[in-house]
Amino acid sequence: MSYLAQSFSVKFDYKIYFTKFLFNIENTTLADFFRERAAEGGQKIYFVIDEGVFIAHPNLIDNIRTYFLVHPTVALLPDFAIVPGGERSKNDLSLFDQLIDATDSYGIDRHSYIAAIGGGAVLDLVGYAAAVAHRGIKHIRIPTTVLSQNDSGIGVKNGINYKGKKNFLGTFAPPAAVFNDEQFLTTLTDRDYRSGISEAIKVALIKDQEFFCWIENHAEALRNRVAEQMNYLIKYCAKLHLAHIGGADPFETGSARPLDFGHWSAHKQEQLSNFGVLHGEAVAMGIALDSTYSFLAGFLTEDKLHRILNVLLQLSFEITDPIMTINDLQSPLLKGLAEFREHLGGRLTITLLTDLGTGKEVHEMSPQLLIKASSYITNFLENSTSLNFNND
Amino acid sequence: MSYLAQSFSVKFDYKIYFTKFLFNIENTTLADFFRERAAEGGQKIYFVIDEGVFIAHPNLIDNIRTYFLVHPTVALLPDFAIVPGGERSKNDLSLFDQLIDATDSYGIDRHSYIAAIGGGAVLDLVGYAAAVAHRGIKHIRIPTTVLSQNDSGIGVKNGINYKGKKNFLGTFAPPAAVFNDEQFLTTLTDRDYRSGISEAIKVALIKDQEFFCWIENHAEALRNRVAEQMNYLIKYCAKLHLAHIGGADPFETGSARPLDFGHWSAHKQEQLSNFGVLHGEAVAMGIALDSTYSFLAGFLTEDKLHRILNVLLQLSFEITDPIMTINDLQSPLLKGLAEFREHLGGRLTITLLTDLGTGKEVHEMSPQLLIKASSYITNFLENSTSLNFNND
Repeated sequence: MSYLAQSFSVKFDYKIYFTKFLFNIENTTLADFFRERAAEGGQKIYFVIDEGVFIAHPNLIDNIRTYFLVHPTVALLPDFAIVPGGERSKNDLSLFDQLIDATDSYGIDRHSYIAAIGGGAVLDLVGYAAAVAHRGIKHIRIPTTVLSQNDSGIGVKNGINYKGKKNFLGTFAPPAAVFNDEQFLTTLTDRDYRSGISEAIKVALIKDQEFFCWIENHAEALRNRVAEQMNYLIKYCAKLHLAHIGGADPFETGSARPLDFGHWSAHKQEQLSNFGVLHGEAVAMGIALDSTYSFLAGFLTEDKLHRILNVLLQLSFEITDPIMTINDLQSPLLKGLAEFREHLGGRLTITLLTDLGTGKEVHEMSPQLLIKASSYITNFLENSTSLNFNND
Repeated sequence: MSYLAQSFSVKFDYKIYFTKFLFNIENTTLADFFRERAAEGGQKIYFVIDEGVFIAHPNLIDNIRTYFLVHPTVALLPDFAIVPGGERSKNDLSLFDQLIDATDSYGIDRHSYIAAIGGGAVLDLVGYAAAVAHRGIKHIRIPTTVLSQNDSGIGVKNGINYKGKKNFLGTFAPPAAVFNDEQFLTTLTDRDYRSGISEAIKVALIKDQEFFCWIENHAEALRNRVAEQMNYLIKYCAKLHLAHIGGADPFETGSARPLDFGHWSAHKQEQLSNFGVLHGEAVAMGIALDSTYSFLAGFLTEDKLHRILNVLLQLSFEITDPIMTINDLQSPLLKGLAEFREHLGGRLTITLLTDLGTGKEVHEMSPQLLIKASSYITNFLENSTSLNFNND
């Protein structure tokens, strides 16, 4: 037997810019970005906008047109794509086809840009289309929700759903850049605004006790949508996520997935609720379940568990609901464990907590203990509600 | 303005094994490969086979089944997919859908394998499906043609066609491994066998004069299908391709594409002939055209050009045909230049020759000079034929 060995490394770099009023002509963040990269000329940019953002910001397209008139760094395509927001955009395969058609008909080449403005789902859809058209068109993300600005929009993954299976099709493809514009957060509903905070709690719980304490201490300000506190939360959370992604295994070739703490049940709940529950809401309930399991398995003290459940309640999250309730071994939610293993590939790897800020990997979960955890949360919630805890 | 910077490198490693009778139970190349990697257990393997290979090797599936019975390293899925060979497999989007369905219904996870046995087109299709399912299932390539064993099957690209546009959808995704089995070459038609040699001539012309001389000196043995010479050609050519890919820009973020010498017209000819002309045949004519252009532009001497055209003829390649003939500025082939630029992205970058073994990048081609080059080749061919050169 003989062989030839191939070995090489590919370097990936991108920046996450934090700004306000990105398309105000006085704001040169975006123009400067393109100016530094306009090496060969002839680059185009095509914008895809989340329908919800389009409705909440009726002047957005005019502002973008004016911006590129004043800062003619790349050639703005006159047409804009408006796609439905939320999980619908990832479930409708015809939207992917439409984006591919657009790259073809507008002649968008590998040195041109597709920019997506919207929530995480729209960014995932557009990122996937950009990643496979011409084997990769440059992709710019402009996340408009708390969740996408602090987590899903800043990483290296994209994807769409297939036959109801979340992210069944996708790639690892770092964006050319991410622009977080805090102004977009002001038009979010309370529900959308709040739901993004659960990913910050998640990453704090597995990586950074100090950040968890900060969230505890600022829960009221966050619930009341104080911009200064939210900006801090987003940037700090983004930093923790970036540090993790840039660490040992950016393209996730192994089975470990600590950032998916609380996610095995969240993915299943989203599917079982037909995506009626938002991702961040499902993650909050997933955190509650796996934290409680961590306590019942003997890894986490009860007072620390209570701090976790309380901070979720203070931020107005539901910590359980009928879908999340595991009454017996036939509970549909339990199927999420097998599906999570399949999605990771290889061995089941679940992150539990041993402390606030410290995770621990396990390779199995006891269904019996999950039933107990579910029941514990229901009892905790009844006691909290009777104490009127959540209406301070 | 503030920002966070993300920066990381991803390392890719894989081997190209050279062997004979891969699925003979005495041959442990494949079993050893899996044994070294069977860390966590539970890995599956799903085989996709080129219809042409399936017909030429009627015992192949039985051999594979026996092999995994004797060497139970990974769990062989009982079903096999048989897909049409050649460009048809890349033009039919429903084949992509079928492969995605299979990964779903068989529960093939990211630590499992999809293996493709076939020519370059089938490997491109299967590689693309494997790259996007679950954001990347491990992919094993078993190329069965000269072209795929020395060039297309050993690199990092995959893709399918979209609305007749070659490789419009695809990714850069290194395989887990490549297994080149020389036995598959014995059942190729002369046309399929020969057509793969043009990529070896191409890489020799831009990178390695000594290799070009070797091909000249062994043209007769290669035409007569002497295994020893073909094995040498494939391995040497693979080595040159791998060295290039592992060099400065494996995922082709720039516009330069020296390995695409002779390819701008080849891609267009394949499309214009509705893929009736094989890729390797089109590349041979593309080499003839761009080498002649190199001479007419003053870069290459005429005697060296003649050596190139003669070696192509000695290997029984056509060096032009009606589609390749450029009579005037309206010739359809000329559209291939603009399409090539768009596919590369950015600036047009064409490799020409200054010597046997030395390329030179240019950023435009003169249509007038291309008309002259086309006419030069026609005249050369008439003179060669009248001398009965090709029937020695």
